[in-house]
This record gives sequence, structure tokens and C-alpha cells, in this order.
Amino acid sequence: MSGNHELASYIRDIPDFPKPGILFKDITPLLQSADAMATAVEGLCGPWRDAGITRVAAIEARGFIFGACVASALGCGFIPIRKPGKLPWDALRHEYSLEYGTDCLEVHSDAARSDDRILIVDDVLATGGTAAAAAQLVVRLGAQLTGFAFVVELGFLSGRERLEPGTVHSILKYD
Amino acid sequence: MSGNHELASYIRDIPDFPKPGILFKDITPLLQSADAMATAVEGLCGPWRDAGITRVAAIEARGFIFGACVASALGCGFIPIRKPGKLPWDALRHEYSLEYGTDCLEVHSDAARSDDRILIVDDVLATGGTAAAAAQLVVRLGAQLTGFAFVVELGFLSGRERLEPGTVHSILKYD
Repeated sequence: MSGNHELASYIRDIPDFPKPGILFKDITPLLQSADAMATAVEGLCGPWRDAGITRVAAIEARGFIFGACVASALGCGFIPIRKPGKLPWDALRHEYSLEYGTDCLEVHSDAARSDDRILIVDDVLATGGTAAAAAQLVVRLGAQLTGFAFVVELGFLSGRERLEPGTVHSILKYD
Repeated sequence: MSGNHELASYIRDIPDFPKPGILFKDITPLLQSADAMATAVEGLCGPWRDAGITRVAAIEARGFIFGACVASALGCGFIPIRKPGKLPWDALRHEYSLEYGTDCLEVHSDAARSDDRILIVDDVLATGGTAAAAAQLVVRLGAQLTGFAFVVELGFLSGRERLEPGTVHSILKYD
């Protein structure tokens, strides 16, 4: 692991969740500590403080926790990217492939303007499929995708490569 | 409507969502404005600043957006209350009745201690069924339920009565 070792002590490993063979990174112990959360939010914001970010987009549901705090810390608006059928107004939809089958994300069609500079925030970067789908939605909104911020990056899954040429920052990286 | 009229201008009415006859209060325009979000978070926190809150619990998924910001503003830890099967560790489960059928919420069994004072945060108080279920989980954790904070209260649905004797504060109330 590389990154902030004290923050890493708040991440709990859960074997075989959500299915056998997967070692899940549980961020709920981190959420319980106001100090650890403040450190995580500062770590997410730090590389982007001078990047002219105007809106933070985050992916349902854990991404909302960190994304809302980052938006507040950067003084930006917040864009929820959601599972199908959850957004009540006119929405753009992007389907994407998983290991087995497909999944889908949506964003309201009025969630950003062409001069918005968007940072995508989520808790964990694994294979990058979900973050790449979120990026596609931001591009389809006509806004500028500035980059990505994650608390945890599972480097061995190479998700970062799927997000190129976008700039990716993560606080804790597991190789 | 009673409450902050400027903030109310950021709430969009969506007729017949998620089903015919329901007038849905869409908070995504509010999320887009950093200033309106700051006003909403201050409105949620205000009545609770001196209440000794130690943790904020919020309900998946829109509740996470406001709850995380309130936890940060009050310097508290954050407890996610989630739909079944989403939490990876040992969880308490509470089933509750809806108009048709049942729903269920879960919380990690280590999410709070007996000396924690918990504030439950959500975006909208409608019939109160979901918030009452969240309250049951907080009580079963052995923690002290201090009260509830909502951005929008649909007063005509009398959800507040289901949360008594808990203290309920809302920013915008529609009668």
C-alpha cells in the first residue's frame, strides 16, 4: 500500500464480498471518524484546489458521501450520477459492460453547462468501468471533464488505464 | 410553503414521479448551486449546533449528500443506513411496512456506541416510514437518538407524527 498509512488504518478488509474471491475495501470505519473524514476530503481536494473545478459529479451511493463533502470544500455545485430510474427529470443514460452483463448510469440533462469543469469523485477505483461510464455522461453533457479523485485505488486492477487521458488522483493505492 | 423562500426556488416540482398522483420534490437544482447547498447545510445544522451530536446517520442515497455535509459541518462521524445487502460487515436489519408490501434498511452493528448522540438526516420527510425505520436501527444500536433534520417536509402527509417523541426540524415545509 502507498499513501497515508494512518488513513489506511480506517479501511477494513472484507473477504468474499460482494461475491467469493473479492476482497472488499470497507470505508465505513473511516466515515465514523470526523478527523479521518476531514483528512480524506482534504486528500481528495488537494490536487484539484487550483484546477478551476466548478462542479463535482459523484456516483451513487458511497460516492455521494465523499463527493458532497468535496463539492462543499471546493465551493462547487454537486451532480448526482445515479442508477436507472432514480432521477425524476429528463436524463441522459449510458449503458456499460460488466464482467457478466451490463449496467447503466444516468445524469440529468441540465446538470452542467459547456463552461463547467467537472471533477468525478468516488470511494474506490477498481476496474474503472463505473468511473468511465460517469466520464462518458459528463462528456455527453457538453462539459469539460477535468479528472477523477478516489479515496482508494486497487492498482492491480488497472482501472486507471481505462480513464486515460483523464488525470486520476487517489489517496490510498493498493498494488 | 413556510421557510426560506429563496432556498425553495431551487426545489423543482415533478408531477407523477415515481408514480401517478405523486408530486415529487426534486432537489437536484439545489445541489447544483454551491451557495444554496451551503444555506441548506447551515439550515440543517442550525437547530442542532449545541445539542452535543456525535454522529450523523443518513439514509441511502440522497440522504448521504446532505448527511455527509452536515456531519462535516458539525465535526461528527457519519453512519450510512443502507438498502439490504449493501453493507459488507455484520449488520442490523429493520423491515417496515409500505402502502403496498414491505421495505428494509440496514446499519452496521458497530456504527455507534451507547454514548453516541445521533442526528438522522434526509432530504425529504414524507410519510415518515423510512425515517422511523432509521430511528429504530439507531435505538437498536444502543445509541441515543437525538432527533431528525430534513430539507423538505411534506406536512400534509403528517410524517412528523410517526417520529414523535423525537424532535423534528425541517427547513422548508409544504402544508
